[in-house]
Amino acid sequence: MQYAEPIDRLIKAITRLPGIGEKTATRLALYILNAKKEYVGELVESLLNVKEKVALCSGCMTFSDTDPCSVCSDAGRDALTICVVSDYKDMMALESMGGYRGTYHILHGNLAPLKGVGPDDLKIRELVERVERNGVKEVILATGFDSEGEATSAYLARLLKPYNARLTRIASGVPVGSYVEYMDGATLGRAMEGRKEVS
Amino acid sequence: MQYAEPIDRLIKAITRLPGIGEKTATRLALYILNAKKEYVGELVESLLNVKEKVALCSGCMTFSDTDPCSVCSDAGRDALTICVVSDYKDMMALESMGGYRGTYHILHGNLAPLKGVGPDDLKIRELVERVERNGVKEVILATGFDSEGEATSAYLARLLKPYNARLTRIASGVPVGSYVEYMDGATLGRAMEGRKEVS
Repeated sequence: MQYAEPIDRLIKAITRLPGIGEKTATRLALYILNAKKEYVGELVESLLNVKEKVALCSGCMTFSDTDPCSVCSDAGRDALTICVVSDYKDMMALESMGGYRGTYHILHGNLAPLKGVGPDDLKIRELVERVERNGVKEVILATGFDSEGEATSAYLARLLKPYNARLTRIASGVPVGSYVEYMDGATLGRAMEGRKEVS
Repeated sequence: MQYAEPIDRLIKAITRLPGIGEKTATRLALYILNAKKEYVGELVESLLNVKEKVALCSGCMTFSDTDPCSVCSDAGRDALTICVVSDYKDMMALESMGGYRGTYHILHGNLAPLKGVGPDDLKIRELVERVERNGVKEVILATGFDSEGEATSAYLARLLKPYNARLTRIASGVPVGSYVEYMDGATLGRAMEGRKEVS
């Protein structure tokens, strides 16, 4: 015996979500079956709403329900300092750190030739245009320190060299709260390389 | 900085699903943001569809998109043998075992006085009516062997005693593939109690 067709269809749709296997999808589908109509209505409404109202900010390319987004439209923030990140989640992590008063640029991925992701698949053209147009003072390269993040950062550094902006890369080293003994050689190498005078 | 309101609302709606924490909900919401419109359309459609088309079978109370369900309407199945289970998932597990040719009755829960679940919250009245009306030959009590399942089974056994049906309870013992040494005393007690002649 199979699940009834509408249940089966829902399980299949849920299974396509990342990190959700068939077992979890089945559990969720059966929860939906038992759930109040109001809840399912709210879930559906918020799914549609997010696709309808959220678009990319024409400045920094972040997801936003306003254009420009709340960061780009904030007069208190320095529009001439741009922190380049791979992903919306990276921007959210930096924002929750607090203290950064510049703006962002979201690439929506990293260069990954083996996966077929080239410069045209990322928001790189938009970054170059911003740097060109606005007399940007500093571009902070804040992609990850995995191989793809590093390659993307190196590519952007080369690409943005002709412009007048200062190009910086966020520091790599031992994370706060971590022990030296557990760090890999590459990280320790970076930490040594980036060492600073103790005042 | 907070997520944009529509994103935040979607995260909140997803967090209400069982076993989904805020981190997973955020990951799923951001996936939805990036996902193709067609996929989100299909997800929404199947959510609405399942609530619209799936209802309880008026016979066995299972979830079905037809009434009576495919089991109750199958002339090859014995309508006078009813296997009582707590949950739709229990019925699916028994069906995937194959071989059972009777019908089911889904209670939609177990008696749980401490959680405020009494007989009126389960499909017990419907079961009694079926037994009364149809001259049922056998009622197989197949609720779980946890305390609530056991209590529910005992309650039903008392309730159905006045009728002419044979009342049986599925066997409890050592599961296939398990070792005796790892079994708890209660299970071994049941296994001893239920021992059978070796032919």
